[in-house]
Amino acid sequence: MNEHRLISDLLLIKAGGGKNINWDGIARNIAGLWPAQRIILIHGASVLRDEIAARLGIPVKKVVSPSGVTSIYTDREGLDVFLMAYAGLANKRIVADLQRHGVNAVGLSGVDGRLWQARAKKEILSRENGKTKLLRDNLTGRVEAVNIDLLRILLDHGYIPVLCAPAITAEGEIVNTDNDWAAAVLAGELGIQKMIYLFEAPGLLKDVDRPDSAVPFIPRTAIDEYLVFAKGRMQKKLLGAERALDAGVAEIVFSDGRVENPVHEALAGRGTVIQ
Amino acid sequence: MNEHRLISDLLLIKAGGGKNINWDGIARNIAGLWPAQRIILIHGASVLRDEIAARLGIPVKKVVSPSGVTSIYTDREGLDVFLMAYAGLANKRIVADLQRHGVNAVGLSGVDGRLWQARAKKEILSRENGKTKLLRDNLTGRVEAVNIDLLRILLDHGYIPVLCAPAITAEGEIVNTDNDWAAAVLAGELGIQKMIYLFEAPGLLKDVDRPDSAVPFIPRTAIDEYLVFAKGRMQKKLLGAERALDAGVAEIVFSDGRVENPVHEALAGRGTVIQ
Repeated sequence: MNEHRLISDLLLIKAGGGKNINWDGIARNIAGLWPAQRIILIHGASVLRDEIAARLGIPVKKVVSPSGVTSIYTDREGLDVFLMAYAGLANKRIVADLQRHGVNAVGLSGVDGRLWQARAKKEILSRENGKTKLLRDNLTGRVEAVNIDLLRILLDHGYIPVLCAPAITAEGEIVNTDNDWAAAVLAGELGIQKMIYLFEAPGLLKDVDRPDSAVPFIPRTAIDEYLVFAKGRMQKKLLGAERALDAGVAEIVFSDGRVENPVHEALAGRGTVIQ
Repeated sequence: MNEHRLISDLLLIKAGGGKNINWDGIARNIAGLWPAQRIILIHGASVLRDEIAARLGIPVKKVVSPSGVTSIYTDREGLDVFLMAYAGLANKRIVADLQRHGVNAVGLSGVDGRLWQARAKKEILSRENGKTKLLRDNLTGRVEAVNIDLLRILLDHGYIPVLCAPAITAEGEIVNTDNDWAAAVLAGELGIQKMIYLFEAPGLLKDVDRPDSAVPFIPRTAIDEYLVFAKGRMQKKLLGAERALDAGVAEIVFSDGRVENPVHEALAGRGTVIQ
């Protein structure tokens, strides 16, 4: 992290790919903050990907690691679906939504300008029926570096970058990647202080079936204790948050992306604040 | 067109969406020219779109105008397929291909940064069985303006913009658009002097069944005479070329995108030169 590259007044918003995320509300809230507040938006598209995969008859292969974290095994067809759903449909819909609210958004994947540079991770351990299996030829990678110059150029000229996976390897291969991890690396390299995660829950829930069980505050040192409450994809978000704090982010808010004003509520600290 | 905005040393390459376009050759040729030569690449993805539409069971609705020009009627589902094929799959594959050859490419659709601003054209005349029908709710538009500042910023920082439809209306609606027309408007606004079109033929053929019938040279004033030879999609390319010449482009080469060195051959004048 180079000091001269920091953009400390930048807000990073990471919105999940759930069906009920209020994208119009997010766009409206961003329009209210921009351009005084510089913003980068990172989005998921998991539900859209699953829908397209189902319509194309391509199964989404979920694997569970020996440590219990759920991932996607990505073969060539799976990567194509990923590109269609994330970089194609979701990214451009979100960019158009922002444009409708007067925000000059530019959508990019991690492939564009080598924005998210990943190390390929071709082999993945999968826990199936109590046995650990090694799966090969997995087209995924872990983001290790970010082209922050490209982001700075866009931000300096008044654009809001709207980013999504996949990423690209040093060899120029497109690879699926964990959006939450990529967001954390980006936050660290840009010196971002504040980050909000919007998803389909009012925060980190102690009991996934009880929306009123959201944890209001997690001190940075206690994240590991809360990993037990994090189910499914929430585990990755919490691990991503931990990585972001390690990289220098001061405050992270996990907040509800389904409410009328998702960004405003998150900025007001509604949800789970991690410091 | 503002004089101060011109980038006269810029080469515009428009490559079609045919199955046999040699993308690796195009990327290799571009790598040989870049960064000394500044380049913008515009691509199609019609075959990919048709394949995805077929797999999803969504028919691609082709209509023929009363003047005989073939277009696509785009409804909501058709637009989704378009986004998946063009902005998702094709654009990112081409960007990664360029990256593999060491070229720092950034893929954008016309929606990003309002790159291609179109006027909606919701109604379309269709000639069916000798009768002219009016089709409504067509999600298409004609590009009227280009965000050339965004292109300049990217070019000035050493990136190659890789562009594709769709476009966006003033109201922020995503609309399908004619890539060839959009390329012509872009060429005019940027003051581009030289443009090459790569497709699956050795130039404009007098007889579509005879590859040796390519017209070597068309003077600008004679384009209309050659419209009779232009079949199917080639008509749109020729109309686009006419529009580009009207907008100030000095030379256009129609050349074969399937050969080993598509860009080099086109720059050497192989194919149909229009001046």
